[in-house]
Amino acid sequence: MSEAPRFITFEGIDGSGKSTQARLLADALRADGTDVVLTREPGGSPGAEEIRNLLLTGDTDRWSAMTEILLFTAARRDHLEKTVLPALDAGKIVISDRFADSTRVYQGATRGDLRPTVDALHKLTIGREPDLTLIIDMDPAIALRRGLARSSGEDRFEDMGLSFQETLRHGFLTLARDNADRCVVIDGNRDPAAVASEIRAHL
Amino acid sequence: MSEAPRFITFEGIDGSGKSTQARLLADALRADGTDVVLTREPGGSPGAEEIRNLLLTGDTDRWSAMTEILLFTAARRDHLEKTVLPALDAGKIVISDRFADSTRVYQGATRGDLRPTVDALHKLTIGREPDLTLIIDMDPAIALRRGLARSSGEDRFEDMGLSFQETLRHGFLTLARDNADRCVVIDGNRDPAAVASEIRAHL
Repeated sequence: MSEAPRFITFEGIDGSGKSTQARLLADALRADGTDVVLTREPGGSPGAEEIRNLLLTGDTDRWSAMTEILLFTAARRDHLEKTVLPALDAGKIVISDRFADSTRVYQGATRGDLRPTVDALHKLTIGREPDLTLIIDMDPAIALRRGLARSSGEDRFEDMGLSFQETLRHGFLTLARDNADRCVVIDGNRDPAAVASEIRAHL
Repeated sequence: MSEAPRFITFEGIDGSGKSTQARLLADALRADGTDVVLTREPGGSPGAEEIRNLLLTGDTDRWSAMTEILLFTAARRDHLEKTVLPALDAGKIVISDRFADSTRVYQGATRGDLRPTVDALHKLTIGREPDLTLIIDMDPAIALRRGLARSSGEDRFEDMGLSFQETLRHGFLTLARDNADRCVVIDGNRDPAAVASEIRAHL
């Protein structure tokens, strides 16, 4: 990256500590006098939060995989238009806890046959990628022992257990290799302050 | 069409009488002992009705054109999976008051630059076309005089007036010419019983 990254996303499995790290980075940048918008997906704008409510409530088989992907994409489009792009246009730094990579990895892990559809939908209706994606990597067994692995905001995978979390971890690491121009893998198996310090060194 | 049409849609401007004709056709087929599912868009399944509520309530500028198209497509996918396809699989006739053609014509009339996106989204996530589309054609000025032209279920165009309805009418007629294999234009400027009689002659 020739310029300092302005649209920064955090990705990783549940319990990796990415939400904590997103907040710590926002706090650190604000302490330096930088104007930061800290946001998250799914949601991050009033309309996207309403779509999130449709996605995360009701029966788990309420939506098919395809309908779910369309709703996630509609929410992302609203979040992008109403929160992310206006902040970037105003010269602010945007930090998002999850973005399109979560859909890629979660849908890829559960419905690999729909991954090409996820990619085509993104290209057609979203387009924008982050300048920098920090993938917080953590051993899922450690996350579980810490009691951190919990229900995901991206989908309802709460009962799918350790092997599923390992599949997701592999998905995020593969995505980082395939998008090395914008992705950095951070070892999350450490004290949060040490992780935060390494993240700030990447900016 | 070599086989009798089983997935039949009604399209046209507001006030064309298409909803009445959809109901009259369903009634006539049922009187002949045919098992018919009469449905409508946006909506037509519990999930799609919830998405419809997101689309048709709140401020008119609540959703951008692109987000709106994604939400219409998500609703259509749910309607297709939960209502249309199960009925067809069970050997029933499905009659839908509006389907994908409404999105094509309404978005084409208001945001022509997004028409390629509408088409690409349909191909990617819906695919299915009706066997027969009955386009009820009516002079918008007559519809207005009859007090029939009212708020559309497809979008919020209530304040856009006669010239907009004429643009929509032109859009439906162009669509019929471009899809002559499945579309039939019916003159709606007549007594509803006469219109219904002509429609039954097409089946």
